[in-house]
Order: sequence, then C-alpha cells, then structure tokens
Amino acid sequence: MIGIGVIGYGYWGPNFVRNISELADARVVIVADLKGERLALAKRRNPVIETTRDPLDVINHPQVDAVIVATPVATHFDLALQAVRAGKHTLVEKPVCATRSQAERLIEAADSRNVTLMVDHTFLYTGAVRKVKELVGSGQIGDVYYYDAVRINLGLFQSDTNVLWDLAVHDLSIIDFVLGVQPTALSCSGVSHVPGQREDVAFLTLHFPANLIAHLHVNWLSPVKLRRTLIGGSRRMIVYDDLEPHEKVRVHDKGVIVDDQEKRYQLRLVGYRTGDVWSPQVDLSEALRTELIHFTHCIEGREQPITDGRSGLRVVRLLEAASQSLANKGIPIELGAAAV
Amino acid sequence: MIGIGVIGYGYWGPNFVRNISELADARVVIVADLKGERLALAKRRNPVIETTRDPLDVINHPQVDAVIVATPVATHFDLALQAVRAGKHTLVEKPVCATRSQAERLIEAADSRNVTLMVDHTFLYTGAVRKVKELVGSGQIGDVYYYDAVRINLGLFQSDTNVLWDLAVHDLSIIDFVLGVQPTALSCSGVSHVPGQREDVAFLTLHFPANLIAHLHVNWLSPVKLRRTLIGGSRRMIVYDDLEPHEKVRVHDKGVIVDDQEKRYQLRLVGYRTGDVWSPQVDLSEALRTELIHFTHCIEGREQPITDGRSGLRVVRLLEAASQSLANKGIPIELGAAAV
Amino acid sequence: MIGIGVIGYGYWGPNFVRNISELADARVVIVADLKGERLALAKRRNPVIETTRDPLDVINHPQVDAVIVATPVATHFDLALQAVRAGKHTLVEKPVCATRSQAERLIEAADSRNVTLMVDHTFLYTGAVRKVKELVGSGQIGDVYYYDAVRINLGLFQSDTNVLWDLAVHDLSIIDFVLGVQPTALSCSGVSHVPGQREDVAFLTLHFPANLIAHLHVNWLSPVKLRRTLIGGSRRMIVYDDLEPHEKVRVHDKGVIVDDQEKRYQLRLVGYRTGDVWSPQVDLSEALRTELIHFTHCIEGREQPITDGRSGLRVVRLLEAASQSLANKGIPIELGAAAV
Amino acid sequence: MIGIGVIGYGYWGPNFVRNISELADARVVIVADLKGERLALAKRRNPVIETTRDPLDVINHPQVDAVIVATPVATHFDLALQAVRAGKHTLVEKPVCATRSQAERLIEAADSRNVTLMVDHTFLYTGAVRKVKELVGSGQIGDVYYYDAVRINLGLFQSDTNVLWDLAVHDLSIIDFVLGVQPTALSCSGVSHVPGQREDVAFLTLHFPANLIAHLHVNWLSPVKLRRTLIGGSRRMIVYDDLEPHEKVRVHDKGVIVDDQEKRYQLRLVGYRTGDVWSPQVDLSEALRTELIHFTHCIEGREQPITDGRSGLRVVRLLEAASQSLANKGIPIELGAAAV
Repeated sequence: MIGIGVIGYGYWGPNFVRNISELADARVVIVADLKGERLALAKRRNPVIETTRDPLDVINHPQVDAVIVATPVATHFDLALQAVRAGKHTLVEKPVCATRSQAERLIEAADSRNVTLMVDHTFLYTGAVRKVKELVGSGQIGDVYYYDAVRINLGLFQSDTNVLWDLAVHDLSIIDFVLGVQPTALSCSGVSHVPGQREDVAFLTLHFPANLIAHLHVNWLSPVKLRRTLIGGSRRMIVYDDLEPHEKVRVHDKGVIVDDQEKRYQLRLVGYRTGDVWSPQVDLSEALRTELIHFTHCIEGREQPITDGRSGLRVVRLLEAASQSLANKGIPIELGAAAV
Repeated sequence: MIGIGVIGYGYWGPNFVRNISELADARVVIVADLKGERLALAKRRNPVIETTRDPLDVINHPQVDAVIVATPVATHFDLALQAVRAGKHTLVEKPVCATRSQAERLIEAADSRNVTLMVDHTFLYTGAVRKVKELVGSGQIGDVYYYDAVRINLGLFQSDTNVLWDLAVHDLSIIDFVLGVQPTALSCSGVSHVPGQREDVAFLTLHFPANLIAHLHVNWLSPVKLRRTLIGGSRRMIVYDDLEPHEKVRVHDKGVIVDDQEKRYQLRLVGYRTGDVWSPQVDLSEALRTELIHFTHCIEGREQPITDGRSGLRVVRLLEAASQSLANKGIPIELGAAAV
Repeated sequence: MIGIGVIGYGYWGPNFVRNISELADARVVIVADLKGERLALAKRRNPVIETTRDPLDVINHPQVDAVIVATPVATHFDLALQAVRAGKHTLVEKPVCATRSQAERLIEAADSRNVTLMVDHTFLYTGAVRKVKELVGSGQIGDVYYYDAVRINLGLFQSDTNVLWDLAVHDLSIIDFVLGVQPTALSCSGVSHVPGQREDVAFLTLHFPANLIAHLHVNWLSPVKLRRTLIGGSRRMIVYDDLEPHEKVRVHDKGVIVDDQEKRYQLRLVGYRTGDVWSPQVDLSEALRTELIHFTHCIEGREQPITDGRSGLRVVRLLEAASQSLANKGIPIELGAAAV
Repeated sequence: MIGIGVIGYGYWGPNFVRNISELADARVVIVADLKGERLALAKRRNPVIETTRDPLDVINHPQVDAVIVATPVATHFDLALQAVRAGKHTLVEKPVCATRSQAERLIEAADSRNVTLMVDHTFLYTGAVRKVKELVGSGQIGDVYYYDAVRINLGLFQSDTNVLWDLAVHDLSIIDFVLGVQPTALSCSGVSHVPGQREDVAFLTLHFPANLIAHLHVNWLSPVKLRRTLIGGSRRMIVYDDLEPHEKVRVHDKGVIVDDQEKRYQLRLVGYRTGDVWSPQVDLSEALRTELIHFTHCIEGREQPITDGRSGLRVVRLLEAASQSLANKGIPIELGAAAV
C-alpha cells in the first residue's frame, strides 16, 4: 500500500484524490491546501484523510511514500524539489517547471535520490492518444505531412501563466509522444486582450525535418470548446477529436497519388481503394486512473515513467522558445539539439 | 439587356453561365474555352450560346458588353486588360491578378476607360458574411479581439498557384470587408509535400492595430472539409460556419468582465446576462446570383462595385507579403500604409 | 437519341430537364406546365425546347418517345395512362398513383402496350441506399432486428396529399428495396394542425415476419431537417444519414452476445472485437442522373426497371393501408399477401 | 443534519452517496447492498459510512431519517412501504412501483404517516427541462402541436423490466411536467430480439386533447446514443437535445402562417420576422444534486416534492396502459380520467 500526499486541492487535486481512492494498492494519507474551505471539503468527502495548510506536513509525513504536486506552476519547482530531496516519489502537474533550468535541476535531484519523478501529461494516458501513436508508429498513415491541433475554449484566466503554458503544453506533450522527433525551429504569435493579463490567444508553428509541420491554436477566449487534431499522412489521415464521446479517432483512407503517365500529381478524391473512414475502438477509461496506476507500477517496479522528468523538460524547452518568439513578434527561433 | 461573354468554362465558368441564364436583364452571348468538350457541353445545355477557342472572339464580339474572366490566375491580367481596353466591363475571378503591380495597372486602365472592373470575391455576396459585417459594424460584439479562419479540405492541386492564393484569398477578402482596417504586419509558414508542387498547407498570422490578431489555416490535404471562422469580441463572439445548412452565423453572448473590487479579471462563464446563443436568419440566396445582379446594377448605374479592383488589389498585396514571409521561414513582414 | 417530353415544370420537373441535358443519348423535346411563367423560365434556360400548356401536346408529340409525369399525385393516373396508351415509355413521379387499383390498371396498360413504366423512387438510385442494400443483402449485419427512419423538416404543405404520401413514400420504397420482404401488419397515427389541411405529422409502424419491426416518423412541422435511418442487426448496425455530406453510411460493429456460462444475456459494450465504426465510401453521383440513365437503358434494352410499376404498386398498397389505420385512431391493419 | 440511508449501491446508488457527501445539511449514515464488493467500494471511498447486506438495517437505523431506494423495480414497493411505515422519508428510484395499485398503496401509506414520498424523476431537476417547461408554460411557443422524443442507445439489458419501463419512464415524467395535461389514449408497439428477454425496442404514441400528439422511441439496441426531443408549437418550436454540452435547448422562430387572401395555408419558410434560432442559457448543475437539495428542503419544510408519489403514479398508469397495448399488437387504449 503506497501512501500518497497531495499538495493542492483546487481544480485538479480532487481528481487525484478521487482516483486514488479507487485503487487497491494506494491511499491518500494527507492533503494540503492554503484554503480552509477546500480542506473541509476534502474532509467531508473522506473523513479519514488528514489535512494541513503546510506543504511540508505532506512532504515530511512518515506514511507518505509519494507526493503529488497540484499547485500553480510557479511553485512546482520548490515543492517538487523538496519532495524529491526528502526521498519521496513525486508526480508534478504539467508543466513540470516554469523554466528549462529548473526542470534540469529537478531531474538531476530525482536521479541522484533514485526516486520516481513523473509529470502529469494526462493525455498520454488516454486510449485515444495511445491509438493515434499506434497508428502513426505502425506506418499505417505513411509519412507524416502535418500535425494541426486546435485547443480552444472560454477558459479561466490564470494569473501566473499564459494560454501557451496552460493549453499548448498538452499538445506539445502529445506531439513529443506520437511523433517521437524534435522540432528544428518554431515561431509563435499571440496577443493579450485583458489589461494586466498575459496572452489569451496564441498560434504556434513548429518545423520538423522532412517537411513535417505542426501547428497549434490555443485560445482562452473562444465561444466554443474545440479539441481537434488533424494528422495528414502520405497514405492516410487522422482526425482525433477528444470531445467526441465515442469515435474519438477517425482514420480517413485518403491521400495524394502520383500519376506518372500524366506527368502530374492529382488527388485521389474518388477511387475504389480510397475514401473509407474507419473509427477504431479506443479505451475510454479515465486517463487519470491509468496514469496513477502507471505511477504506482513505476514506483513499485523502479521503472521509468512514460512521462518522466525528461519528457517534461522537452516540453518546457519548447514553451520557453515559443515564449521568446512570442515576445519578439513571431520571429522564427532555431532550436538546437535537445539534450535529452 | 446586357450581353455577356465568358472566358473559361472549366470549374467555375458554368456557374456564371447558369446564373446569368436566370437573370432578366442579361444574357450569355458567347463562351470561350481551350477544350472542345467543354464547349460542346455548354452548347448542349443552351444551344443558342456561341462558342469559341479564342478569347479575343469574346472580347471583340459586338454584342458583348461585359466580359467575365474565369481562367487560371496567370492569365487574368492579360485577358482582363484586353477586355478593359476594348471598353468592356470586366469581372475577374479571384485573385484579380498574380501581382500587385498587375492589379494596379489593371485598375488604372479601367479607370481611364471608365468601365466597371469587379473582382469575384464571392463570399462578400453571401447573406452570412453580410450578417457578420453588420454584427461587427454595429458594435454588437464590441471591440474585435481576434479573427480566426479555418478553410481546409482535400482539394484539387492547382498547377499555377499554391494553397494561399487559392484559399486564403477568400478569407483575406472577407477580413477586408468585415473589419475595414488594414494589417500592419504578417507572418506566414507553409509546406509543400508533393514533389514539384507548391505549398499545400499554410498558416498566416495578421497583426492589426489595437491588439487585433487574425489567423488563417488553409490546407489542401485535410481529410475533412471545414469552413469555420471565429470572431472574438469584448462583448460577444461570433461563430461563422459556412458549411452549416441554416445556422451559418451564431452569436454567443459571452465575454470577459472586469471585477474592480476583486482587483482582478474573471471570465463571466456563468451569469444571468450572459450565455445565450442567437443565430440570426441569413439570406441563403446563391451568392453568385447576388454578385451578378450587383455587377449588372453597377454597369447600368455606373456605380462602384463592392468588390472593385481596389479591393482585389488590397488582397493581392497581402498575398504577396505572405508569400515573401513563407519563402523566408515565416519571418514577420511589416506592411506599409495601403495606397488604396 | 431518345426524345423526352416533360409534363410539369414546378419543383421537380426542372431537375429532370437539367439532368437530361447532360445525357448524350436523350434530349428534352417539349415541356408542359399550366403556368406561363414557368414555361418562360424553361425557355430562357434552353431556347430550343418547345413549351405548351396542354399535356396532350407532349403525349402526342411525334418526336417524343418517352414521357415524364412530374405533376400533383391526383393527376398521375390519367396522364400516365394516356401516355402509355399512346405507346410512350413513361416515368411517373412518386407515388405512382393515388390508389392501389389505379396502379394495377396502369401496370396492366403498360404491360399490354409493351412500354417501359417506371416510378421515380429516386433514393433507390443513390449510392448510399445501394450500399445499405449491399450490406444488408450480404449478411454483414446479420439478422435485421429493426428499421427506424426519421424524415422530417419544415416542409411545404401540399394541397392534395398528406405527409405520409409525400414523405413516407420514400422510406417505404427504400424498405421494399433493401429488406425485400413485405410487412404482415401496420399501424399509423397522425394529426393535422392546420384547419382544412391534411395530416402534417405521422408515425407508421410496420410488422414483418421474424420479429422485424420498421418505424417511420414523417413530419412537415419540424424545426430541423433530419433524414436518418437506423438499421439494427444481430451482428452489426447501420446508421444511414442522408444529410451527411460524405459519410452517409456508417456501420457499427456492435451487437448483443449471449453468454451461456453466465446463463444470461449481455451487451458487448466493451470488447476487443467490437466497437469499430466503418464508413464505406459511397457513390455520390446525383441520383436523378443515375435514374435517368437507367430509364434510357431500360427503354433501349427492353429491360424491367428497378423501380417498375409493381414496386410503385407495393408502396401505394402500404400507403393505402396506413391511411386506413390513420383514419381509425391507429388500429392495427393486417396485410394480406402482396399480389406483386 | 438529515441522516440518510441508501439501499442499493449498484449503478445509481453511488451517485446518490457522492452527491449527499457534498451537501451541508445531510450525510449518508449507512449503505445496503447484496454484494460484498460493492460495500467494500463504498467503504473505501468513505470509511465512516456503515455498510450492511440487510435493507432492514438501513430502514431501522436510529440515525436514519430518510431512506433512498435504489434497487431493481420489483423490490421498490416492499422496501419503500417498509421505510414509510417505519416513519422514514423515502426517495424511490424511477419508476416508483411496478404497478399502479402498488403506487396507490404507497402514496396512501406515506400520506397517513405524514412522511415525504418522492420519486427519482431526475430529468425534472435539470436546467434544460425546467427551461423547456418555462418556454411552454409562458405561451412563447404558442399551442403545442406535437412532442416527439427519441431516447435510444446500446444499453444494458435489465432482467426484470423492458425498455419502456427503463427509458420511456423518463419521457413520460417530462411530458407530465412540461405539458401538464393527461393523454386520452395511447398505442404502443415493441419487439424483443433476444430470446428470453423483454422488449428492447418500443414506439409509444400518446393522444391528447386538441390534436396534440406525443411520440416516444425507446431502444436498447441502437448503435448511437440519442436524447432528442422536438416540440412543435403554433408560434415557435423547441429542440431539446440532452447530449449537447451547452446549447441543450434551442428555440426556432418558425411556424405556419395563414394567408387569408390566398384562402390557403402556407409555411413561412422565409420571412423577415421568422427564422432566428435562440438558445437560452440553462443551469448546468448536476440534476441529482438539485434533486437531493429539494428532497431535504421538502423534508425540513414539510413541502410536497415536485416529483411526489402522485407524479410517480401518473407515470406508472401510462406504463401499464402502454404494456397492455404492446401485448395486443398495438391496439389503441382509451385512458379514463386520471384519479390524481
């Protein structure tokens, strides 16, 4: 039985606690939050959980084997570092840290203590994203031409971050997982519309080798909620719509064919081998449950998590570069080789 | 009765001919095309229409008062210039010309001959775009924050142009019409995936004064067809989806409110004055019919068309700048004051 | 070259004329309509077509080999009978006649003159319905459990018929084609809401052998347009949505499985062999064009049309029985063996 | 603080427990279920809740003021009657009882003990249904012409009931609430496709005074999940789609107009005053929470619940009549005056 302490019981923290309560081999020992009413709520839902306002009570609790950090981004580094240094396995909400160098130091600390460090890149634990990775990895869609993601909604402004760090982080982690290659350059434009607040709309373009292009549209000011990704390939194309209740992934047997006799290229808009659409069944289990099971397995088996500190670092590296482009009117930023 | 000659009977030309046949005060006199089978088809549909392979037969036909140029972009300038110089009113398919200087020369020629020069920016004659302009112009949506358009499909590659000149031209003409302001800078990224062909995917960002940002995603390699524009405003937000059969325009009463007492900004996600969605009825008449009626009215009344040569020039100016950015890895291009 | 005369140039007639003008081996000789403005419109679209107010001018025209009757239902029998008796091949808009006995007499007359009699059951010439028939006929969906069709919209009231004869006729012809079995009983409820007008909403249930049930909802007073059919089978299920632009037919690999060990029945909601959805490409050609090509082929080759007089009769037989149930508060009507 | 005991911790019971844990003035004291693993799960989620296999432990628990019966239908009457007789306020899952006479006896028992008897007609506590009732009640849609509900999905077969008692019960309760009139007759057809199981597909038609007709399609064998209701009125029409995440209720300003000069009726398909669509914001709170707050208020204030025993009885009366029609091939059943 792994004892878990949760720091932060705001929007996402209660989901951690609820899912852990369904697991057989883990339990929540203690929850920390700055607000008393949240702690009272945690207590009412499960009276045997301890509560505290001090994160150190969680980190230093003798029955706590693993700490979950579900607090604002600016606090991730300090809290996670303390947890790691206390020898606790640590799961940090996304993005793992506020800067690349913080992420590097955190990874180093976890490595030296030999504790599990994991980042909450939740979407990588959905059946849909796993199916997309399987489709791309198996070569069924051929060469990948483009990756286009739209993640927009009327969202709560966050005081300490912009829309890029809040929403694009999801797509960057999915791209890292599904494509398995690192971009060579990026450019990013964005605007803030509320005085004193950070960017609420942003467009990020990523260039990869071999003419692969990726593009993200993230937006806190959209009247409609959209979560749609298109992946164009030389053989087939994928539509991944996370808001579809069942058919989240659709594979379109469509593509461009080369007609050598005609000495020109045509789209095979109509063709007997083309045009069918296929929606493979995907596992609809709650991603957070799958993620937490993975966390406990990694702790028990000393395995490296799929979303380890390095995957968190790769994403933060891109967010930093995107922020740099954003601050300079969208100038292209060349990316060196990723160290990780 | 205005006699009309149509040059080009490929994809779009037949739509001109069909719509003119429904008008009371105009008739198609002659149609030109390079392919005999197309001319035979035109003849079978209406045996009294003359046909020819030579565009000059159209331009110089004594019963032809107005010429419609529905040919590939590269030929627009030469054909339209000859028609204008022959004293014929001229309607040119979009984009009006292949370069800014061509467009300027064509406008000059039309002005000096005092003939009507019009560009086929079809969407400006739809009830939906007119309703959007009315909503934006009346101040109902407040300050415009962003304009985001997605125009993607599995489309026929065109040998003489890229996806920007084929598809983004529509959105640039709509933006010009609806917003009524010119951008100050832009950047554009795009990629070609078919050897020997031009860009098939492109992303274009336009910066306007007062933190207004516009963004276009155009794509010939999309498995799904989308035609959706979001316009975010300080008071309300618009979703314009041209593929919706009836509710093409939806106005969402959603927005950001400033809470001075709290000294912070919040989204009014839940509020009694907010949240209703309203879809005003729009005129669903065929745009091309409305456009052709406008063309004949402008000819008869010597009025300036809504989509005159200058609106065509403004769009070509942006396409040129976008092409320049595209060719330079997406570097931002500053735009000077538009001369028109 | 088959000479065709068209009687009726109202809503549907122009579609016949337009499609015939695209065919290589047929041409429209003459069009009849009671209204002068419609004839003027026909003339403007194609000046070489003759026009008349008298249907007999069409039927007796020496260059007319085949007559298309596109008039109100009440006139179908008289006009079609005269055409058949004049030795002309005849295509009648749906429903073929206003009563079962009329249909029987019309079939008899066509048989004795050896002319082609065809009914305009247009949907049977769509790629979607043909694909559905193929799926059902091949056994891919297993035993058919139910057939549920919704065909509703805000529709024009017709003075001489009710919603059943206007809309359900389509679904009855599709059921006849796809299932290939005749119902044993039916019941129908419906209501009229406009004084002096016939039923504008109706629900029709058809009972077939082997626990197969079909149900139609037809409605002229719906705020939304729907054209959706569900076909449940023991192995798979079909959703046929005629308003989908591309994926009109979807096959769901879902069904009920019997778990003998558990001695009870369960739905296999989650299972590795189940749950995929597949949308086969369907021919998107305009149905009326396919139908007219079939008509000319049947005339030239002396073949029996897919939608011959007998298929028209089978549909009218069911409409008559449904009307009888409707007039008697929905009492079930037993259907004898169909003579055809 | 109201002490609550919950009998049945299967599909729905945990939702009651979870929602009660969020309330300030109520708490779950004890949970009963026949299966040990379910009780263990309840215990893991909240270790202070008592558990038992014997429903009488719940009913007779001294700290239990109110009992919730969330068990199969066949057991509702016995369990609820015992709870009521023990002087406990009682909330019974829908349908309230398996027969009309059981419901009458249960109401009588509750009345004589002066305890609150409530039925879990959950949908009446959704913001969407309340908005629909408000729209209909205020006369905004004019005279109601028809009510058409589709409630279909691939659903779990229930051993002790058919699809009518499982799904139509929801729509009958909504109709009772929204329209406020009782039907005069009904007819129902349905079929069972799984040997040994009850009907899995059913169609129910209800006739009301003044040409109002209602129709329900309920189905456990549908490949797609639909929850859509159309309400046609003389002035406006409503589409209520419970699966829409936000715009659950849409009001279409469409209707039929009478043109006296023309002496005939036309649909105003196109008209300047018509055609707008409006989606009023609805309260998206979880219905079960609203329902439980109402339950505690009724207990504390001795008020009659909106969904009292009599509303449960009215629904069971219709289910009984529908079953009678279903067993007799869909014969129409005349309904006498409802006693309640």
